Amino acid sequence: MRLADLPTPCLVLDRGVLRRNLETMDRSASRLGVALRPHLKTAKSIDVAWLALAGPAARRGGGIAVSTLAEAAYFWSHGIADMLLANAITPDKLARVAALNAAGASVSVVTDDTDTASAIAAQPAPPRTLIEIDSGAHRAGVLPDGDLLLELARRLGPACVGVMTHAGHSYAQRTPEAMTQVAAAERGAVVRAAARLTAAGVDVQVVSVGSTPTALHAAAEPGVTEVRAGVYMFGDLFQSEIFSHGPDDIAVTVLASVIGRRPAEQALLIDAGAIALSMDRSTASGPVDWGYGQMRHLDGSTGYGAAAVRRVWQEHGRVELDPAVAADLPVGTRVRIAPNHICHTAAAHDRYFVVDGGAEVVAIWPRVSGW
Amino acid sequence: MRLADLPTPCLVLDRGVLRRNLETMDRSASRLGVALRPHLKTAKSIDVAWLALAGPAARRGGGIAVSTLAEAAYFWSHGIADMLLANAITPDKLARVAALNAAGASVSVVTDDTDTASAIAAQPAPPRTLIEIDSGAHRAGVLPDGDLLLELARRLGPACVGVMTHAGHSYAQRTPEAMTQVAAAERGAVVRAAARLTAAGVDVQVVSVGSTPTALHAAAEPGVTEVRAGVYMFGDLFQSEIFSHGPDDIAVTVLASVIGRRPAEQALLIDAGAIALSMDRSTASGPVDWGYGQMRHLDGSTGYGAAAVRRVWQEHGRVELDPAVAADLPVGTRVRIAPNHICHTAAAHDRYFVVDGGAEVVAIWPRVSGW
Repeated sequence: MRLADLPTPCLVLDRGVLRRNLETMDRSASRLGVALRPHLKTAKSIDVAWLALAGPAARRGGGIAVSTLAEAAYFWSHGIADMLLANAITPDKLARVAALNAAGASVSVVTDDTDTASAIAAQPAPPRTLIEIDSGAHRAGVLPDGDLLLELARRLGPACVGVMTHAGHSYAQRTPEAMTQVAAAERGAVVRAAARLTAAGVDVQVVSVGSTPTALHAAAEPGVTEVRAGVYMFGDLFQSEIFSHGPDDIAVTVLASVIGRRPAEQALLIDAGAIALSMDRSTASGPVDWGYGQMRHLDGSTGYGAAAVRRVWQEHGRVELDPAVAADLPVGTRVRIAPNHICHTAAAHDRYFVVDGGAEVVAIWPRVSGW
Repeated sequence: MRLADLPTPCLVLDRGVLRRNLETMDRSASRLGVALRPHLKTAKSIDVAWLALAGPAARRGGGIAVSTLAEAAYFWSHGIADMLLANAITPDKLARVAALNAAGASVSVVTDDTDTASAIAAQPAPPRTLIEIDSGAHRAGVLPDGDLLLELARRLGPACVGVMTHAGHSYAQRTPEAMTQVAAAERGAVVRAAARLTAAGVDVQVVSVGSTPTALHAAAEPGVTEVRAGVYMFGDLFQSEIFSHGPDDIAVTVLASVIGRRPAEQALLIDAGAIALSMDRSTASGPVDWGYGQMRHLDGSTGYGAAAVRRVWQEHGRVELDPAVAADLPVGTRVRIAPNHICHTAAAHDRYFVVDGGAEVVAIWPRVSGW
């Protein structure tokens, strides 16, 4: 089976690019002297997980992060035991965590809420729990220097095994130097929190940080035990704009077909729209706004210039062509769309059609979805 | 099983509201004297399809519209034969259409492309084909008065059975009167095109128009044989802002749990984010911008005032509360999020948890996804 024969729209994963991205991140974690905990929220695939766990820094940890209980159940069914459910848990979800752990998994959870901490401690077999720290993203987490940190540890009791944070504000930085600073603040927050917990008698085993940009740009991570990252595996247009990788390192694209021609408008329609691409507009805040995605050739090369999907409907995308690049494409022509934010684009697809640089499909890898 | 026990995030469908919306649209089509062809791209569910096909105007037609070949195969597997694949076909997709039709289905297709028209005519058993007309939306289709219309009919030969259009620009109107005008233009374009084809010797059997706003607001549809509409079944915040229905007629919402409290910021976090809600921002252009969705009570009532999801990450949504409405919600509290655009929100979910006004789940209806 070849790319040109696939039903469109669909996801294409270039295994060679994936391997290169995995090696880059694993080298970065090794350089920092910390374990790498690959976050599988982006890939949602056991085949990707095995490759991501193969590097030295990932083997040193041996575990993954997940974003849903559906992912946790799926990866456990494929033999991965050590998982961090990296979103704040709710009391009613503890039963599903307990069921996985009773079966042999080792799912740890995260909280920043006192009532939830009490609910965790009240479980017959409380899961290992990390306190979420706000290191500057201001999404979730408690302040490393506040009273709430110690109150959470008190309520959790022996379930508390450490701290975690996600420096999501790294995405708002626009220079590598700024990423390095965010990484330092990310590290500083959790290490400070860990020290306070240790002083309060907590046996702190895990000090976990993470985001693809900070994991790549951190200068040093003393006191940190692991870094988590996810989008680095695939990359996307936005990550290429914030120095996580180069434009040739985007491993996953959407294969689409031309379904309509609008030559008078230097435009065309493709069969990848709001669902197949997602409505993510990450690059709107970057140096180059790629609309809903950059149009590339079937072979992945970028010869269409500035051609990008500028408008989407449920199953239609409108590509505006680059006036400087002739592109008279008949209906049925296959193109590949590099996504703004692959975590969101991949969500609508149930499998990857895997290539290895060429046009031959060498594997089909399923994805888990839902909750 | 009750709403309060469901794993979150998930889709909740209120069957009573759905029935009311179906009746409203079927009455509108009956008033116009045309058949209703329900578009199942929104619902993607056979259970919804049966209900949508139960009204007199829908029974008069007996068919549905679909947006993907995956939908066509799914609905055919459940016994629905008459389907219009309402997006422009590509030559390579004709084999899948032919396979369905050879098995007994009656899938018709759409084109506005001369090469594709030739490819259709060259099939061993060409599917019934409608020529897509641009009635003002300027997304796809040929002009009703242009030469291309007749050239397409010539190439299609006996495969050509009529014309269709989608007045997508109805979504940009902000008064019922403007919707009525768009509906008149939509009708005018296809009726004119149909007359030209008839004069050229084509046996025009189908003159198909459609969009929820024009189907509801059209003054009359002489010459039109069927109206297609989809989002009317469920409604959403955007449709309620453009007069398709009232705010209490939203049949599908996302059930979510509070996962974090940010009382100092009058905000909270829920476990429905960019994937569970989609990143659709339709209401940004409306009179009230609901961000990524309006927060409602577990029972569906709107007592949280202006509380809305203002920011999303993959699995987190940040709700900004209404300062005028006290809402001190513990972690684990269930809320319902009314969506901006349900076609996109529903896409990430594989089933509906069905209620009938109350808190009891009376059915679970699967959805088809993918392509």
